[in-house]
Amino acid sequence: MRIDRFVKLLNEMNFDGAFISPGSNLYYLTGLKLHEVGERPTILVVSADGEYKLLAPSLYSNVITNFPVTFWRDGENPYAKLSTILGELKLYRGRFLVEDTMRADWLIGILKLGNFEFHPLSSLIRLMRMRKDREEIENMKHAARIADKVFEEILSWDILGMSEKELALKIEVRIRELSDGVSFSPIVASGENSANPHHEPGERKIRKGDIVILDYGARWRGYCSDITRTIAVGRPDEKLIEVYEIVKEAQEKAYRAVREGIKAKEVDKVAREVISEAGYGEYFTHRTGHGLGLDVHEEPYIGPDGEVTLENGMTFTIEPGIYIPGLGGVRIEDDVVVEGKGKRLTKAGRELITV
Amino acid sequence: MRIDRFVKLLNEMNFDGAFISPGSNLYYLTGLKLHEVGERPTILVVSADGEYKLLAPSLYSNVITNFPVTFWRDGENPYAKLSTILGELKLYRGRFLVEDTMRADWLIGILKLGNFEFHPLSSLIRLMRMRKDREEIENMKHAARIADKVFEEILSWDILGMSEKELALKIEVRIRELSDGVSFSPIVASGENSANPHHEPGERKIRKGDIVILDYGARWRGYCSDITRTIAVGRPDEKLIEVYEIVKEAQEKAYRAVREGIKAKEVDKVAREVISEAGYGEYFTHRTGHGLGLDVHEEPYIGPDGEVTLENGMTFTIEPGIYIPGLGGVRIEDDVVVEGKGKRLTKAGRELITV
Repeated sequence: MRIDRFVKLLNEMNFDGAFISPGSNLYYLTGLKLHEVGERPTILVVSADGEYKLLAPSLYSNVITNFPVTFWRDGENPYAKLSTILGELKLYRGRFLVEDTMRADWLIGILKLGNFEFHPLSSLIRLMRMRKDREEIENMKHAARIADKVFEEILSWDILGMSEKELALKIEVRIRELSDGVSFSPIVASGENSANPHHEPGERKIRKGDIVILDYGARWRGYCSDITRTIAVGRPDEKLIEVYEIVKEAQEKAYRAVREGIKAKEVDKVAREVISEAGYGEYFTHRTGHGLGLDVHEEPYIGPDGEVTLENGMTFTIEPGIYIPGLGGVRIEDDVVVEGKGKRLTKAGRELITV
Repeated sequence: MRIDRFVKLLNEMNFDGAFISPGSNLYYLTGLKLHEVGERPTILVVSADGEYKLLAPSLYSNVITNFPVTFWRDGENPYAKLSTILGELKLYRGRFLVEDTMRADWLIGILKLGNFEFHPLSSLIRLMRMRKDREEIENMKHAARIADKVFEEILSWDILGMSEKELALKIEVRIRELSDGVSFSPIVASGENSANPHHEPGERKIRKGDIVILDYGARWRGYCSDITRTIAVGRPDEKLIEVYEIVKEAQEKAYRAVREGIKAKEVDKVAREVISEAGYGEYFTHRTGHGLGLDVHEEPYIGPDGEVTLENGMTFTIEPGIYIPGLGGVRIEDDVVVEGKGKRLTKAGRELITV
């Protein structure tokens, strides 16, 4: 069981315990899927002795069964109940891991209950989660196939005159029909908006001469895909066509650089060099990629500071981009698994397509 | 400007500063809307001297303009840059507010930079946000009108045979067409699933004799609505019809109890007494309501521990429910603003409707 391996790692790395809030790590370790927990403290306490107990709002008493749990009702103080759990597990001080995404107000509540030194949970659990097993990779392949299928369908849609928001919603609905849900809200960035790598789809209507960045993904049994394709509507600015070919080359060369045993930053370097040598270095403002799995952003990060050595079973994106303020941007993103060398999970065409 | 009032409150309550991450509070104070920030530290530091500066990833250099900001690039250490900001603002120790929903790993990063005592930001900012001004209430009225309109439309749909997931998606698409987006993923809980107040819509198909809980909301200019109606498909179990009338009475009496000057818990008590006296007290497992505004859950909470005294301009939900495991549940929820007495913002009918 994964939680036993986790406890073993806790001991090896000299931690006394962990505080884990709902999310992908809790799911990975226990299979507990708790949605929309909101502001009510819900915390799994794990001790290095191998004992564990969940604190949860009584709202979930119908859902959480066959798991050691202490419920608290609205009106009760959840931290008093948490303190009791800490007593049961004999945890009063020491080095503890904390779920990275736990709400700060919960952590402030925990801070008062003992003399704890905190470290991000990801620092340890990434060692477990980075390498996917066969079943996890099968789920990711399926999620990637859905992303490819949706891209093929988009090319048959009449997107001219659609707003970014309309197109993003249409993509989301299609993903949700085919999968367990979206990995994240689809990004549609058209025309000059494509110069913002995290653009939120708005009212701007897609028109002739636009370059359009489409960035989206599907979930399958909890596992994510994440694809970006940049397409042209009519004939875009010559400079953007030039930029497209540079990004495509950077993406392809970074992909070919992937192999077991090299560091993540070496993959980043390959993409960055292609773009810098073409004179666009200052317009490539983010990392080359990020790990992908139960989370849409996880280890290993493929950036200039990526010290992780790539191993078989690791899965991540390769997504260089060039963004020129006022003009537009281009990004091409695939999901990759390391199997000796890199193997693309997303397979949609990467030539510049004009619709 | 709201940030000046915030600084004034910081001083009145003896705080030395605040750390605010992206979300509704940052938007409320500064107008900055930063989406999908993810794991990259993005923190507004405010000092009680009235100075403030934002730490943000360089990814946002196109988006954040006309605001005091220090950008960090992928590969750089954001906490080193945060330390510089703390030096500029002369903040080394003291009592600090922290955004309740800030990621724990960011707070762990801040912990190392000084001798800070942390308190949840909500404890202070709720004093500002609880009372809505005229413009905020207009936005909430509009969001509520959209929720009403969608309910009316749902009644005209042929939902028999639809899966919960399909119906939830159809509701979401309609909300997104009419508004700035959903307040939260719509809940559709049918048949025995309605016994779980936070049920996630699944593959179960709606059939004759079902009771169906519909819980959803729309956003308008950042402000939320949140409505629940329980409908019948054909003739449901007699006991659920009895339960429906009890919940309706509890909701109506709690609504009529709302007035300026009483405590939130007094409203909760009215709903709870109706349900307890009918013999279903143990099946009402949550609070009677929650504040509503830029967040779908905010102050004032309408529960047994609700010590907030209701004032004009406060907005919240009233949503008692009864949930009988194995059989089903009923919840009726409206959004209410205090204007002397309570005034419903959502106005959809509350009689049991059979479709």
